[in-house]
Amino acid sequence: MIKVVLLGAGNVAFHLAKAFLHAKDIQIIQVYNRSEDAFKFFPDTINITSSLSEILDADCYIISISDDSIAGFSATLPFSGKLVVHTSGSVAMNPLNSKNRKGVFYPLQTFSKNTEVNFAETPVFIEAENETDLQLLQKIGRSISEKCYNITSEQREKLHLAAVFVCNFVNHLYHIGYELTTKNDIPFDLLKPLIKETARKLDDGIPSAMQTGPAKRNDKKTMAKQLEILHLQEHKEIYSLLSNAITNQYGRKKL
Amino acid sequence: MIKVVLLGAGNVAFHLAKAFLHAKDIQIIQVYNRSEDAFKFFPDTINITSSLSEILDADCYIISISDDSIAGFSATLPFSGKLVVHTSGSVAMNPLNSKNRKGVFYPLQTFSKNTEVNFAETPVFIEAENETDLQLLQKIGRSISEKCYNITSEQREKLHLAAVFVCNFVNHLYHIGYELTTKNDIPFDLLKPLIKETARKLDDGIPSAMQTGPAKRNDKKTMAKQLEILHLQEHKEIYSLLSNAITNQYGRKKL
Repeated sequence: MIKVVLLGAGNVAFHLAKAFLHAKDIQIIQVYNRSEDAFKFFPDTINITSSLSEILDADCYIISISDDSIAGFSATLPFSGKLVVHTSGSVAMNPLNSKNRKGVFYPLQTFSKNTEVNFAETPVFIEAENETDLQLLQKIGRSISEKCYNITSEQREKLHLAAVFVCNFVNHLYHIGYELTTKNDIPFDLLKPLIKETARKLDDGIPSAMQTGPAKRNDKKTMAKQLEILHLQEHKEIYSLLSNAITNQYGRKKL
Repeated sequence: MIKVVLLGAGNVAFHLAKAFLHAKDIQIIQVYNRSEDAFKFFPDTINITSSLSEILDADCYIISISDDSIAGFSATLPFSGKLVVHTSGSVAMNPLNSKNRKGVFYPLQTFSKNTEVNFAETPVFIEAENETDLQLLQKIGRSISEKCYNITSEQREKLHLAAVFVCNFVNHLYHIGYELTTKNDIPFDLLKPLIKETARKLDDGIPSAMQTGPAKRNDKKTMAKQLEILHLQEHKEIYSLLSNAITNQYGRKKL
C-alpha cells in the first residue's frame, strides 16, 4: 500500500482525494490544509490536520496549492529526504525545496468542486529526479487514470498553456454565448448540442479541418453585420481579433 | 408525404439530404445545384439537376447556398406562389424574393462533409409568413429533429452570432492548442479529455460558474510567463485580450 498525504484542500486536492479513495494500492492517510474551512468538503473518513507538525509519515506528499505558494510552502515542511511533488501545470519541478526529493504529479483537467470528474480518462503527467520516484508516481498515477505520462517541466509548461486556450478561454467564449442568448430571451441550452458537436468533431479530424463559419468563408458582409450587433466593446474586440485570425489562417492556406 | 426540393449541395444541404432520407413523411424529390461537382457526395438514389428549368413541383423548396447569394438566387426561381425557405442563421426571412411564400429552416449545427451529425439532437429554428407554412415547416423539422422552435429573424441573428463565439471561435482556440502541443512534440489527443470535460461541465452550471485558470485567479505571474512563452504576435494578442476579459469579469463580480 502506497501512503499519500495531500497538502492543500482546493479543487484539485478535493478531486484527487475522491479518486484515491477508490484506488487500489493507494491510501490517503491525511489531508493537511492551513485553514480548516476547506475540510468540510472532504469525506469524514479522511484524517485531517491544519498543523504542519502533525503531518504523518508517508511515501509521497502531494502539494496542491496556488502556484505562487508552492516553492515557499515546500521550504516550511518539517521533514526531509521524502518525495514531495506538486500538481501544477505551469510551475517547474525545480522550485520545490531541495531538502526533499522533488517531483510533479499534474492531472490535466478542469476541476470545480460541484462537478464530477472522470479520472480514468484524465491524463496525468509526472516528473521526478530519479527512476525509483518516477516509478512510484507512475503507480500512483495509474491507480486513478488509464493515462499516465512522463513529461519534462518544459513540455508541461507548453501543455498547460495549450490548456488555457482550449479550456479557460473556450469557457469564456461559452460565457459570451450565454450572455448573447439569455439577453435576447433565447435559452442557452439551445447552444449545447452545437458546443458538444464542436468538441466531438475533433475525433474526426484536426481542428483546422473542422473550421466553419463566416470568418473561414471570409464572408465580410456577415462579419460586418455581426460586429455591429455586438454592444460591448470587449465583445467587438474579441470578435475582430478571432475573425481576423481565422481569415488569415485560411487565406494563407490558399496561397 | 411532404415533397421537398433542396436547392444547393453544400455541407448543410448534404447533411439535410442524409437526414431526410431516413425521415418518415418527407420525400426529397430532387437536389438542384448550379455545378454538378457537388453531386458526387450525394446518394445515387436522389434525383439531381443543374438546370433551373427542370426543378420539380414540391411542397417546400429549401435554399442552402452562401448567405450572399440567397436573395439573388431566390429571384431566379422559375415558379411562384410556392413555399421557399433558406437555411441561413444570419440572413433574415425578408430578403427572399416575394414571388414565393417566404420561410426559414435553420439547423443550428456545425456541418463538415466528413463528419456524421446527430440530427435528432440538432435544434431547428423555423420562421414563416403564415400559420399554415409554419405548421408545414414544423412537420419537416420534427421529422429529423426532436427540437424544432419558432423564432424571429432578429432572435435568429443573435443566436447565430452566439454560435460563432461558441463554435467557430472555440474551434480556432482548439487550433491554437493543436499548434502549441504538436510543435512541442506533445500529441494533441492528450488535450481532448479536457476539451470534452469543458463542454460537458455546462450541464452542471452556467459558464461563469465553471471558469478556472490563471486569469480567473488573477495570477499575474503565471500570465506574464505564459505571454512570454508564446511566439506568435497573434497568439499573444488573443491571450492578452481573453485573459483581461476573464480577469475583468471576475474582478467586477467581487466588487
